[in-house]
Amino acid sequence: MSKPDILLFESYEAWDMEPMQSNFTVHLFPSSGICTDLDQDTRNKITAFAFKGHSKLGAEVIDAFPNLALIANYGVGYDTIDIAYASSKGIKVTNTPDVLTNDVADLAIGMLLAFNRGIVGAEAWVRSGKWAADGAYPLQRSLSGTAVGIAGLGRIGRAVAKRLQGFDTDIHYYSRTQKETPGWTYHEDLVDLAKAVDVLVVAVSGGPDTAQIISKEVINAVGADGLLVNIARGSTVDEEALIHSLKANAIRGFASDVFMNEPNIDERFTKLDNVLLQPHQSSATVETRKSMGSLQRDNLLAFFASRPLVTPVN
Amino acid sequence: MSKPDILLFESYEAWDMEPMQSNFTVHLFPSSGICTDLDQDTRNKITAFAFKGHSKLGAEVIDAFPNLALIANYGVGYDTIDIAYASSKGIKVTNTPDVLTNDVADLAIGMLLAFNRGIVGAEAWVRSGKWAADGAYPLQRSLSGTAVGIAGLGRIGRAVAKRLQGFDTDIHYYSRTQKETPGWTYHEDLVDLAKAVDVLVVAVSGGPDTAQIISKEVINAVGADGLLVNIARGSTVDEEALIHSLKANAIRGFASDVFMNEPNIDERFTKLDNVLLQPHQSSATVETRKSMGSLQRDNLLAFFASRPLVTPVN
Repeated sequence: MSKPDILLFESYEAWDMEPMQSNFTVHLFPSSGICTDLDQDTRNKITAFAFKGHSKLGAEVIDAFPNLALIANYGVGYDTIDIAYASSKGIKVTNTPDVLTNDVADLAIGMLLAFNRGIVGAEAWVRSGKWAADGAYPLQRSLSGTAVGIAGLGRIGRAVAKRLQGFDTDIHYYSRTQKETPGWTYHEDLVDLAKAVDVLVVAVSGGPDTAQIISKEVINAVGADGLLVNIARGSTVDEEALIHSLKANAIRGFASDVFMNEPNIDERFTKLDNVLLQPHQSSATVETRKSMGSLQRDNLLAFFASRPLVTPVN
Repeated sequence: MSKPDILLFESYEAWDMEPMQSNFTVHLFPSSGICTDLDQDTRNKITAFAFKGHSKLGAEVIDAFPNLALIANYGVGYDTIDIAYASSKGIKVTNTPDVLTNDVADLAIGMLLAFNRGIVGAEAWVRSGKWAADGAYPLQRSLSGTAVGIAGLGRIGRAVAKRLQGFDTDIHYYSRTQKETPGWTYHEDLVDLAKAVDVLVVAVSGGPDTAQIISKEVINAVGADGLLVNIARGSTVDEEALIHSLKANAIRGFASDVFMNEPNIDERFTKLDNVLLQPHQSSATVETRKSMGSLQRDNLLAFFASRPLVTPVN
C-alpha cells in the first residue's frame, strides 16, 4: 500500500523527519512561499498538512488543495489557522496540547525570577569583572511574598499557578468564569486584577477574542511597581502603549516570550533596560519538541487509519 | 542615658543606617582594614559588632576589643566567624536566618530555570537581532519531569524542594540523617545522590565540615548530562576539578551564586559557555535586605536590653 501524501510546512528536526518519511510521502511547502508553485497533480494527492503556526493558513492555501482533510498543527496555539473556514469545508484540525504545558509554565516562572532577581544583568556584572572592580550588584526584588495575577486560567495558567504555590505568593486570576481553585482570588475584571497584584502573567489563548486585552488601561493598572509577563501571544498586548509606559517607567518591567510580528519585533524593545526578551522559545526544549512531533504524527496516523483523532480542535 | 557603642563592618543602606544611628553610637571599622587603627579608648567602649560576613573574624580582631560581648552577623552563614573562639571568651554570636530563606531558594530555582532554558543566551539572541536574522534559538532543556537532588536539607534546602514540587520533579536529597519528608528520596551518600539526578543543588552550610564536599568524584557522578547548582558557599566545591570537567564537557553545566575568593573569582569561569555566574546576590533584594537589617538590630537591641537574643548561634 502506498504511503499517504502530506505537505510539510517549515523545517523539522531529524528525529521528526525520519518517522515522518517512513510513514508518509512527504512533500515540502514551496520555499517560494506560494503553494501553487506545487503542481496541481501533487496538490490533488495531498490530504493532510503537517503545519507549524508561524504563517497564516486561510482560504487561499486551503482551496489550493482540493482533497485536504486534515491540518495537524505542531503547537498548542492555532490562532494563525482559519478554523471556521476549515470547518466549513469539513477539514479537521488537530494541535499538540498538554505536552508543552509544563515547559511554557516553567519559562513563565523562569522569566519572572530572571527579571525580578536581575539574573541577566548580574551575569554580565560577573563576566565583565565589575563584581571585583565595583562591588555588589544593585539590590533586586523578591518574588516570594508577592501577589501574582494570572490572566487566563486554562491549562497553562493553571500550571503557572501550581508552580507559584511553592513560592508563598498570593495567587489571583482573571477568566471569563470563576473556576474551582485551591483558594486563588478571582477577578471578573482584568483591570481590577492588574491593580491587585505585583506581577501580571498573561496566559490567555491568542486570536481575535484576546487581541490587545492587555490594553493601555490594564498596563496603567499594573503600574510603576508592577511587572508584566507574557507567555501567550504578542497580539494580546497593546505594544504601542506598553513601550510608552516602559520608556516613562510607568511600569516596572516587561518580561516576554512573544511579540507582534515575530521574529521582526519592534526594535524599540531591544533598546530598553526594563525588559527581558525571549525568542518565543517557551516549548523549545529537546524533550518537549520530541513530544510535540510525536503527538502531531499520532494525529496524522490516527487520521489515515480512520481512528479517532487524538487531540482535535474542531 | 548614653547610647551603646557598636562597631560597624562594611557598608549599610540608608534604611539601616538611620535606625542604627538613632539607637547606637556607631563606629566604623577602619577603612585601612586594621582594627587597631581605632584608638584603644574607642575599642574599650565597643561591646558589640554589627558584622557582615565577607572577611575573616578571628582571634586577632576579637582580642583587640576587650569588652566585646556580641557579634551580630548580617546574614545566615557565619563561616567566616571563629565561633569556637568567640564562645571561649563568652562572646555571643547571632545571625539572620529565615528572613532570607525564600530569596535564596528563589534564586536557586531562577538559576536552574535560567540555565536549563538558556534565558541569558536567548535574551542576547533577541537583542542582537539574531532571531530575525538567523531564526530560532537552539533547543534547550526541560526542568519539569526531571530528577533534582538537594545536598543539605536544612531551611534553604527544604525551601528549594518545596518550590520544586510544583514543577513535577522527582526530589532526592542527601543529608547526614534521614528526614521527615513528603516522599522525597533519601541518599546517605552524596555520590549516589549525584548519580541518581539530572540536577544537583548544593544547599549545605559552609565551614570546614563541608569544604570541597562537591569533590571530583561527585562532579563526575553529576556527569555529562547533569547540571550543578550552588547557592551554598564556594568552599563546598572543588573548583579546580569542576573547571576541568566544564572545559571537557564532562559535566553539562554549573550555575552558581558563590565562589572561592569572592569577588575575585577564578577568571577561568568567566571564559566558559556552560556556566551561569551570579555575584553572591541570593539575599540581595530590597525586601530581604530590609528584613535582615531589622533582625540584626533586633538582636543588638535585645542584647543591650538584657533580653534573650532573637536568633543566637552559640
